[in-house]
Amino acid sequence: MSNKIPVGILGATGIVGQRFIQMLERHPWFEVSWLAASDRSEGRPYAEAARWRLKTAIPAAVANMKVSPAQPAGAPKIIFAALDAAIAGELEPRFAAAGHAVISNSSALRMQSDVPLVIPEVNGDHIRLIEKQPWRTQSGGYVVTNPNCSTIGLVLALAPLHRTFGLEAVMAITMQAVSGAGYPGVASLDILGNVVPYIAKEEEKMEEETQKLLGTLNGSRVDPAPFAMSAQCNRVAVEDGHTESIALQLKKKASAEEIIAAWHDFHPEPQQLRLPSAPPQPVIYLTAIDRPQPRFDVDLGAGMSTAVGRLRKCNILDWKFTILSHNTIRGAAGAALLNAELLKAKGYLA
Amino acid sequence: MSNKIPVGILGATGIVGQRFIQMLERHPWFEVSWLAASDRSEGRPYAEAARWRLKTAIPAAVANMKVSPAQPAGAPKIIFAALDAAIAGELEPRFAAAGHAVISNSSALRMQSDVPLVIPEVNGDHIRLIEKQPWRTQSGGYVVTNPNCSTIGLVLALAPLHRTFGLEAVMAITMQAVSGAGYPGVASLDILGNVVPYIAKEEEKMEEETQKLLGTLNGSRVDPAPFAMSAQCNRVAVEDGHTESIALQLKKKASAEEIIAAWHDFHPEPQQLRLPSAPPQPVIYLTAIDRPQPRFDVDLGAGMSTAVGRLRKCNILDWKFTILSHNTIRGAAGAALLNAELLKAKGYLA
Amino acid sequence: MSNKIPVGILGATGIVGQRFIQMLERHPWFEVSWLAASDRSEGRPYAEAARWRLKTAIPAAVANMKVSPAQPAGAPKIIFAALDAAIAGELEPRFAAAGHAVISNSSALRMQSDVPLVIPEVNGDHIRLIEKQPWRTQSGGYVVTNPNCSTIGLVLALAPLHRTFGLEAVMAITMQAVSGAGYPGVASLDILGNVVPYIAKEEEKMEEETQKLLGTLNGSRVDPAPFAMSAQCNRVAVEDGHTESIALQLKKKASAEEIIAAWHDFHPEPQQLRLPSAPPQPVIYLTAIDRPQPRFDVDLGAGMSTAVGRLRKCNILDWKFTILSHNTIRGAAGAALLNAELLKAKGYLA
Amino acid sequence: MSNKIPVGILGATGIVGQRFIQMLERHPWFEVSWLAASDRSEGRPYAEAARWRLKTAIPAAVANMKVSPAQPAGAPKIIFAALDAAIAGELEPRFAAAGHAVISNSSALRMQSDVPLVIPEVNGDHIRLIEKQPWRTQSGGYVVTNPNCSTIGLVLALAPLHRTFGLEAVMAITMQAVSGAGYPGVASLDILGNVVPYIAKEEEKMEEETQKLLGTLNGSRVDPAPFAMSAQCNRVAVEDGHTESIALQLKKKASAEEIIAAWHDFHPEPQQLRLPSAPPQPVIYLTAIDRPQPRFDVDLGAGMSTAVGRLRKCNILDWKFTILSHNTIRGAAGAALLNAELLKAKGYLA
Repeated sequence: MSNKIPVGILGATGIVGQRFIQMLERHPWFEVSWLAASDRSEGRPYAEAARWRLKTAIPAAVANMKVSPAQPAGAPKIIFAALDAAIAGELEPRFAAAGHAVISNSSALRMQSDVPLVIPEVNGDHIRLIEKQPWRTQSGGYVVTNPNCSTIGLVLALAPLHRTFGLEAVMAITMQAVSGAGYPGVASLDILGNVVPYIAKEEEKMEEETQKLLGTLNGSRVDPAPFAMSAQCNRVAVEDGHTESIALQLKKKASAEEIIAAWHDFHPEPQQLRLPSAPPQPVIYLTAIDRPQPRFDVDLGAGMSTAVGRLRKCNILDWKFTILSHNTIRGAAGAALLNAELLKAKGYLA
Repeated sequence: MSNKIPVGILGATGIVGQRFIQMLERHPWFEVSWLAASDRSEGRPYAEAARWRLKTAIPAAVANMKVSPAQPAGAPKIIFAALDAAIAGELEPRFAAAGHAVISNSSALRMQSDVPLVIPEVNGDHIRLIEKQPWRTQSGGYVVTNPNCSTIGLVLALAPLHRTFGLEAVMAITMQAVSGAGYPGVASLDILGNVVPYIAKEEEKMEEETQKLLGTLNGSRVDPAPFAMSAQCNRVAVEDGHTESIALQLKKKASAEEIIAAWHDFHPEPQQLRLPSAPPQPVIYLTAIDRPQPRFDVDLGAGMSTAVGRLRKCNILDWKFTILSHNTIRGAAGAALLNAELLKAKGYLA
Repeated sequence: MSNKIPVGILGATGIVGQRFIQMLERHPWFEVSWLAASDRSEGRPYAEAARWRLKTAIPAAVANMKVSPAQPAGAPKIIFAALDAAIAGELEPRFAAAGHAVISNSSALRMQSDVPLVIPEVNGDHIRLIEKQPWRTQSGGYVVTNPNCSTIGLVLALAPLHRTFGLEAVMAITMQAVSGAGYPGVASLDILGNVVPYIAKEEEKMEEETQKLLGTLNGSRVDPAPFAMSAQCNRVAVEDGHTESIALQLKKKASAEEIIAAWHDFHPEPQQLRLPSAPPQPVIYLTAIDRPQPRFDVDLGAGMSTAVGRLRKCNILDWKFTILSHNTIRGAAGAALLNAELLKAKGYLA
Repeated sequence: MSNKIPVGILGATGIVGQRFIQMLERHPWFEVSWLAASDRSEGRPYAEAARWRLKTAIPAAVANMKVSPAQPAGAPKIIFAALDAAIAGELEPRFAAAGHAVISNSSALRMQSDVPLVIPEVNGDHIRLIEKQPWRTQSGGYVVTNPNCSTIGLVLALAPLHRTFGLEAVMAITMQAVSGAGYPGVASLDILGNVVPYIAKEEEKMEEETQKLLGTLNGSRVDPAPFAMSAQCNRVAVEDGHTESIALQLKKKASAEEIIAAWHDFHPEPQQLRLPSAPPQPVIYLTAIDRPQPRFDVDLGAGMSTAVGRLRKCNILDWKFTILSHNTIRGAAGAALLNAELLKAKGYLA
């Protein structure tokens, strides 16, 4: 029998739940032992309950696993949560109160002051907020979250610049893939040959999450980073991969070479610790004039790296560039998984 | 026999040339009497020479017209030019020198100091630059240009704000349709399920053309408008219609209501003159939260209006909004046609 | 006040309901006076209740119309029904029993022996089946149906061949547009860059409906046409327009010229009667080697004609060709509307 | 230094040339030592000369390789040819005459009576035709070809049925990916939201190649298989993967179970020999009702298997089903590579 750590997945049938299962198939530390989804799926074998939308096959170990009720009883200690925000707001606290480590991809609790919002390469120290959660004291349980799929790729590219030069202002315009909306998600009649210049609540999430992620842990809360942040979010007819046109202002003047070096030399804790899902290079600068592009670059670093390209001067802020990040790997399941790996490395999953 | 004014089309077989033919089919003032294209097409009936890519049929009057050599001899006085920049730089001056009124959609001469770059709703007065052209004195000929397809929709939306409140800074991120690259243009392998974050020379054109269009005629040249302008250009899998995410800073503070009123009340000279191709409302503000979208809004004002939506506060500059404009109608053939109508109204085609 | 005939729409908020409203906006005989949809929409103004997905604006006369409960009380005599099959099977008989003329686009009752399945150009005489319906005797009400969106374009092309040469066997392979599945319908994750070789119940519908449509009225029932019919249905990433690759065997040998002439000369009753929605030419043969194509040809005859092309010899059956038909105009709302026009012309709406 | 067999690629910069390079990167027997392309590319490093369109990076060993002139001098003994038919017709005989083993993906010589057209799983014995080629006698050189990308997946599915039950008639309707047309190939304006029901010469190729592949070697020629074959070819907006709707008639009656068993048990020579590029299972039957689909199934067997699904009765011929095959792997580069492996196994590359 395996001596891997058993983990459960809340919301296992959705697109992000499927990515969790796919990414955990050969994980060296964790293995899926419990799956939960909506009432409709309860009691059915996973392969029947889920409308599997990934290119690799459903792992054999999971295909016949029965979908459990979405309740703490019987669930393993570690729970990956891929729930809609409304349900997450209710279920995640319940699991934390019951002593579970809830590693959540949902937006429900991200901005709650005692809930860490974490990208391991960026602000792993924020994990200590866990200790401020009442659940932690009472049952040992807690909630850790990762950011929105459009935020995370951006913040990976911003972090080395913020550390090295300081950020004054960041403007991000996104062209987001349809998989970011889940399944069935975006209707084909809405997006074939079209651009939709609106994604509900997305701009607000990007703006506030970016500032929390790059903010400073201050006792029982995070002081948001004080730079100005403005987002405009668009949906395009791409399957996977959020592309973003960025403009930003730095505190300290920097040359293009210095900026590219900051990205290239970005080798933070998860890479030093060689966490299993940490990409060797979290930010990859591409020199071709027309890259990154979703078709070619979305899987860089097994979907865990942010690709950056087209660094050039801006006439309003200092610099412009393009980023690309895989929205259901680095932007969702992979983000939570890397959080779990960091938690384990730091002794929070003992 | 018709007593309409005969016009010729240089570059008649391309996508923009086709739009000229389509838009001139029932024009009250002009009628196509001459078509020229590359050597390969010369002498062939138009319907054979062109790979017609529009949804309406080739006008009967044009289908059997023989394609002429691209030389002034035999061409009518008024020439619409839809040539690639490299060829335009050579042919347009030759036609102007031979006494033709060259109404050009090409980028070749747009930024030349004595060549007017005109949007009739915005800077019709710049037409007077014609008088500074040596061709005008020598042969009566001249060149008038319209801006790039990604510039024109934006400047229509900017003009009323610039007049009313003054512009300080404008940031534009585009998501451009494939028809903007002509035919065959963008390979399907490059754009299906993809975003390409680069269009050669497009950002430079948007930045300098916007400032010339909103600049001030000063004797024999135009002083560019002094606001900062920054563009980032992306190609998306849309057939027709450039969508742009805009952020801008105004000189004079304005409320959302005042800005929308400025767009709504924008009723400049072409509309007052009721020029045949002038849309009743050049800028249309849409109140639905997720508009404009190419699928639904690209044909507003018969493709000659700019659709605007999602006006909201920006955390860096003052305001953010989305615009959409038809890139081969308002952004190309329709732009030149409206220029021709303005020229006629002002007596330059007599 | 208008002296047009008031009509109601059951299922007014869906894609087909929207097409009804669009096509009835300027109809010379009918005008929309009543709209019904699901309980959720009841009592709300139409413009709020419907997620309008068409390119033209919601007609002003309809935008503020309140959505009524889906019950006969208060509904006008003539009802266009655009309901899902499950609901149609329950509601349509109820309206017919209450004395309404139900002109239905649903599949629920199409194959019922006393319900006419009609394409006015093909089998207008089948309308007489109405007299066999018990509702007709009891209340004057009745149900008339039109075929499935993938059947109707095909049968328009088959009918003149069947009349002139006789059909022995017909094989149809479809490439169907996403709008055929309604809204939200096909998820973008299912169809972007993909082909789905399955549409539930579609092949069965095509096979049995084709034989009923080309069958012979025999007292109180229709004897299905005795030729063999086989369909394979695929979904592709097209917005509007079902393309079909056809192969068929004729009873009487025919040349390509004779077949094309049969299509060209097809000028049946609706065209002779000049019914308002009857296209001047129901079947249009295109000679270009690579047509018909949805992008260019879907709107032929205002979306009411079937486009045919590529007639050539088949090594197994006699002939092969390609057809294209607009699936929500000729294939749904326009089909029902033309049925209503025929009913009126024949005195069934008096 | 490597003791692998050096191979050259003619037409190395195109889409199929790129696939050759990608598939040969880690090949156990062969390694790329020579690349040739058009004059324009000659002398330039490959990474500069090719517009690389695959998702994996250009292999380091190839990136800096200089592109050679397309002449036999200096080329290795074994040549993979990925040339346009017109050029292939001239160059391939020249290389064969100079003693090279030309393993060609081009259509130029496929139907020549002394040139084997081979799918190793289907008709490996046809390789003996090589001995009838004049080049073979004179210089030791020869040409072996693989079929068209739309033929090969189909014939893999047909072969076990032909062997077991005999084929009477086969009707194939294709929905082909854009990569089949090379790069730039299909213009995005031609295929976005569209179906193109015509691919030049494709139907003829499918019909005659299928009969040659399933034909019988008879001395110095192949007697084509005597069943009737009819193809209709369509282009759809899919990147990779040709989907085909098939109907066929068998000589010997068979049940669905027997047909599926014939596919499942198909384990021909390349699989028995464990040729490196032979997929473990050449034909994979999928039981899900809506499969195969390009999005999910195109990479089965590393792109070398044909996926089959939806086997069901046909009202005209006996059976209907859907197939899917990767058009640039199994349909082009992988086909030639497997031919080379078979040639080596049979001693033709010594």
